[in-house]
Amino acid sequence: MRDTIIVNFSYGGIAMNETIETLLGHRSIRSFTDQPLTDKQIEVIVRSAQTASTSSFIQAYSIIGITNPSTKETLAELAGNQPYVKDNGHFFVFCADLYRHEQAGAYENTDVYESIESTEKFLVSAIDASLAAQNAAVAAESLGLGLCYIGGLRNNIEKVSKILDLPAYVVPLFGMCIGYPAKQPEPKPRLPFENIYHKETYNKDTKELTRSFEAYNDVISKYYYRRTKGKRDDRWTEQIANMLKEPKRLHMKPFLENKGFIKY
Amino acid sequence: MRDTIIVNFSYGGIAMNETIETLLGHRSIRSFTDQPLTDKQIEVIVRSAQTASTSSFIQAYSIIGITNPSTKETLAELAGNQPYVKDNGHFFVFCADLYRHEQAGAYENTDVYESIESTEKFLVSAIDASLAAQNAAVAAESLGLGLCYIGGLRNNIEKVSKILDLPAYVVPLFGMCIGYPAKQPEPKPRLPFENIYHKETYNKDTKELTRSFEAYNDVISKYYYRRTKGKRDDRWTEQIANMLKEPKRLHMKPFLENKGFIKY
Repeated sequence: MRDTIIVNFSYGGIAMNETIETLLGHRSIRSFTDQPLTDKQIEVIVRSAQTASTSSFIQAYSIIGITNPSTKETLAELAGNQPYVKDNGHFFVFCADLYRHEQAGAYENTDVYESIESTEKFLVSAIDASLAAQNAAVAAESLGLGLCYIGGLRNNIEKVSKILDLPAYVVPLFGMCIGYPAKQPEPKPRLPFENIYHKETYNKDTKELTRSFEAYNDVISKYYYRRTKGKRDDRWTEQIANMLKEPKRLHMKPFLENKGFIKY
Repeated sequence: MRDTIIVNFSYGGIAMNETIETLLGHRSIRSFTDQPLTDKQIEVIVRSAQTASTSSFIQAYSIIGITNPSTKETLAELAGNQPYVKDNGHFFVFCADLYRHEQAGAYENTDVYESIESTEKFLVSAIDASLAAQNAAVAAESLGLGLCYIGGLRNNIEKVSKILDLPAYVVPLFGMCIGYPAKQPEPKPRLPFENIYHKETYNKDTKELTRSFEAYNDVISKYYYRRTKGKRDDRWTEQIANMLKEPKRLHMKPFLENKGFIKY
């Protein structure tokens, strides 16, 4: 069942283990067989999500599992016609969730609104949901499954919220398709280690950054060329500049404000 | 080196593996031996963080590693006098980072400001940083290390940003202490599975929620009683209501706005 790991770093002095191999071997999967996840697999994945760290034990997220084909089809369209949102082993939606905390406040006769409507607590709930999601992702990959995150749900966040019947103080952040991989693409090379990891203080040296852009652009350009058999060879900075030149999802601010979030 | 896993669920039909055991066996560690992490351990942890999924390949985060004892002491104080921020094997700060993207825009002669100043892109960078952080956490635990997240850095986020010399469009979200555990507390029981996982649509039934609060309060109350030898027996809803009755870190909104984030 377990996928063959093609990445095999060797780190002197550290005995590599199955978990590190799973983490380093990650690639997003966007093509799945039609085999659905079993209830037990779903349970293991969700329980693994639940054991992730959570800020002050707040557990400010929920996970919605979708199997209904017509719901999946609608979500696939709303996410920008991404067919793998429909065709996968199971579709999960990860939500920032402070509804339960509103209810816990009511249960304890305590006014908690200023708190749950603060930017800080929205941030906490988004971080909580993300930590849980990444545990789910790692659990799935360790079981030989593949996955991809679906940020595209935020394209139509209002409609998605209605379909999932979300109450106040719950925001769908992203989806996750999980299933048995039908294709295994090559892992995508990340930014140079030195770019992401800074020692003691942030390295602001723009000349160094430019040099690493050049080196990395070359790596990414070759990666796309290889993967598309010569059809694409975008540089990373080109891809980023193209993506960012037109701002997207500017409805997110008013949506969050209308939901009662980021008020204070 | 590997920690003994005290949780040992058995899921019919699923062959459990080392990774799931690591995930389910998680507990936060707040007491470490004085053994520092090796450079190789740091590298494996950061490289594992880097392979996490990232929204449209944006990689919008940075990780700062702190070893300087006086910096760690200052950060420990700023985080609300948390001694384990100083006393650990290594201290990491995870930042939402769109500075690199501002620079990539400049490199490609493209105006990206409306995009990187949008609420959407701040959210993307916070999610990216969190997914990377959770991979780092899982990698560390698989190596027999323990960890805890430090949201307390946001208590004094302006000062923390200065100490780390962060440029525009970089926000320290949380820290992570990693090291060899000096104590191994019992894992903290999470909310009932049914509370976190919803099928097809969100379950808003408040009576059901109240019943699960009651059952869970009992579990948590007993957990604290056991762990503190009878000194504490807080219910979960009580803990949440007490935490939320006084809003915290209301400086986060103006801080993010001053940093140029959540503008659109």
